[in-house]
Amino acid sequence: MSVRSLLFTPGPLSTSLTVKEAMLKDMGSRDHVFINAVKDIRNGLLQLAHVGKEDGYECVIIQGSGTFAVESVISSVVGEKDKLLVLANGAYGERIVKMAVIHRLNHEVLRFDEDAVVTPEATEAFLKDHPGITHVACIHSETTTGLFNPVAEIGAVCKKYGKIFIVDAMSSFGGVAMDMKSMQIDFLVSSSNKCIEGVPGFAFALCKRSELEKAKGQARSLSLDLYDQWAGLEASGQFRFTPPTLSLMAFRQAMKELEEEGGIPARELRYKSNKQTLDEGMTALGFKQYLKPGIQGHIISSFLYPSDTGFNFERFYEKLNKRGFVIYPGKLSRANAFRIGNIGQIFPDDVKALLIAIEEVLKEERLKM
Amino acid sequence: MSVRSLLFTPGPLSTSLTVKEAMLKDMGSRDHVFINAVKDIRNGLLQLAHVGKEDGYECVIIQGSGTFAVESVISSVVGEKDKLLVLANGAYGERIVKMAVIHRLNHEVLRFDEDAVVTPEATEAFLKDHPGITHVACIHSETTTGLFNPVAEIGAVCKKYGKIFIVDAMSSFGGVAMDMKSMQIDFLVSSSNKCIEGVPGFAFALCKRSELEKAKGQARSLSLDLYDQWAGLEASGQFRFTPPTLSLMAFRQAMKELEEEGGIPARELRYKSNKQTLDEGMTALGFKQYLKPGIQGHIISSFLYPSDTGFNFERFYEKLNKRGFVIYPGKLSRANAFRIGNIGQIFPDDVKALLIAIEEVLKEERLKM
Repeated sequence: MSVRSLLFTPGPLSTSLTVKEAMLKDMGSRDHVFINAVKDIRNGLLQLAHVGKEDGYECVIIQGSGTFAVESVISSVVGEKDKLLVLANGAYGERIVKMAVIHRLNHEVLRFDEDAVVTPEATEAFLKDHPGITHVACIHSETTTGLFNPVAEIGAVCKKYGKIFIVDAMSSFGGVAMDMKSMQIDFLVSSSNKCIEGVPGFAFALCKRSELEKAKGQARSLSLDLYDQWAGLEASGQFRFTPPTLSLMAFRQAMKELEEEGGIPARELRYKSNKQTLDEGMTALGFKQYLKPGIQGHIISSFLYPSDTGFNFERFYEKLNKRGFVIYPGKLSRANAFRIGNIGQIFPDDVKALLIAIEEVLKEERLKM
Repeated sequence: MSVRSLLFTPGPLSTSLTVKEAMLKDMGSRDHVFINAVKDIRNGLLQLAHVGKEDGYECVIIQGSGTFAVESVISSVVGEKDKLLVLANGAYGERIVKMAVIHRLNHEVLRFDEDAVVTPEATEAFLKDHPGITHVACIHSETTTGLFNPVAEIGAVCKKYGKIFIVDAMSSFGGVAMDMKSMQIDFLVSSSNKCIEGVPGFAFALCKRSELEKAKGQARSLSLDLYDQWAGLEASGQFRFTPPTLSLMAFRQAMKELEEEGGIPARELRYKSNKQTLDEGMTALGFKQYLKPGIQGHIISSFLYPSDTGFNFERFYEKLNKRGFVIYPGKLSRANAFRIGNIGQIFPDDVKALLIAIEEVLKEERLKM
């Protein structure tokens, strides 16, 4: 095993040593230092989405993984008499459908192929045909493939028809400029171990306050009650239930480092350089991508397995792993592919080092592309 | 602010530097090193409860706080036609009642005063009168006050009447010898940041497999589906949703250190010494405890506010905090008290240092006891 592993994954990802070092001091969950850190984080996250408390937005932090926060939103804000439309073109859209089924929410699903984006036109046509819909949920960066759905355009359609718009921006928030207000997003969900480059342990929902307030008393669980979690944080600055104190301290450091890097615009540029370096190098090695270039995001890329029948992903993964590079398996329903993430504390030179390792492994495995 | 803070709390608590240092390496959630760590943790936790997979027990790790795992169990194992009895004598018992209400479970509550233990006799009488009950839930160490409920005796009653027994041993597991089998416990819940002395981020349920299997398909949420979480871990060794990788790596280190200390018996002894030192010192300073000695556990103690009307808890807390000692506020419904925990990386000498600080603050505040 190599001492240093670089994670080319959609998260948990590579973080800076200083982010991890922020976890070296024990922290009481009722301590003022901690309470202030939580306050800074909540305000800072709103700022990153170009909104603030003063214009009616709130940040709610939820313990657990990103899915916990998505479920917190879905199961808290869609009321008994409401109806949710899920726009799905991958595993993460389908996960929201699963939540709707478990919580017995009134819902509809508009599905698209995994290699195609959700279109505002199809969404509009569906909303016209189904006037009972009150909420629309969509994934921004579908990590299944790496495509970006056009959330701003879908937001405009939602606004036109007066729908509440919920966006799962799990793997993209912090790595893509997003203005919640101009994109008409009422609820935006992301997590600690994605583009802000923190460690895992919690997720968060940025919420339009007027919509959040409607969720009072309608959650379907105690732990994932979005309104109560918010009310608790507002009342005392403390969490209702034990927070992952050290993950939060690491996250505050990660937010500082994001600012030092030049904020989201600078980080977006770095991730795009990573992707460009990766794309060019992988093309030169003979790899083909699953998605057409026009709909690809810059968070994660799906590469088809080489046509050579001798290709064995497990062995490929292991040999890269031994060289200190961790890539990600595929999740496609109809094609064999693996994924390489462009996010985290990785830089174009790291991508170049990965490409050299891939080339070595291809040679060692005598694979024809 | 002092550089080093000692946490005399029920968790997040003081952990060793080596436990925190185990978080200094990024870890992919699909990495073999991580998967092996999770396997070791799951098996190790069963061993600590004197059971194993070979005799039909399973460990399920749940992301989030301890409450998330309690809710995962309660909302997964109590079926539509089942009926839960909650034995409540504090805030944590009431929290389970809240879960039962939110999930619309058939349930009954048998309440006891906060300063009295749940008795097996009252439980037996209640079960006789309510034959429809299928599951019984009880808190072991009620952190509200610090008392220990006699779970072994209650377990014997549950067994006699053929009930499934669920124990919330959140703040005690790892600090008290507990044999799941002989105590007739079917589900035991605890968390990462308690007596095993890890950092917060997850919790776990130790489950009798034959009962866990009955929970298939009956959970009321996706994230907190106990059966699915288990099935996912069994199938691939991986979590369904992003785990708190670094909290888990810290926990594995914490388990090693527990073993090095001499296991649970040695740790129990240390915590009891802490409590004895604390009790004697506080008595000498004139403090009175909320609970009678006979029912006190050794995890956390509740001290009544001094009778002097000049006592201000916030100031008392702050002055101790500045000296590097973090204590815990009270949670009693009918008495003013604060709490001091005996658990975590604290030793009798640390307790002595805390006592000196308390004495100083009392003098500074000119409080008469």
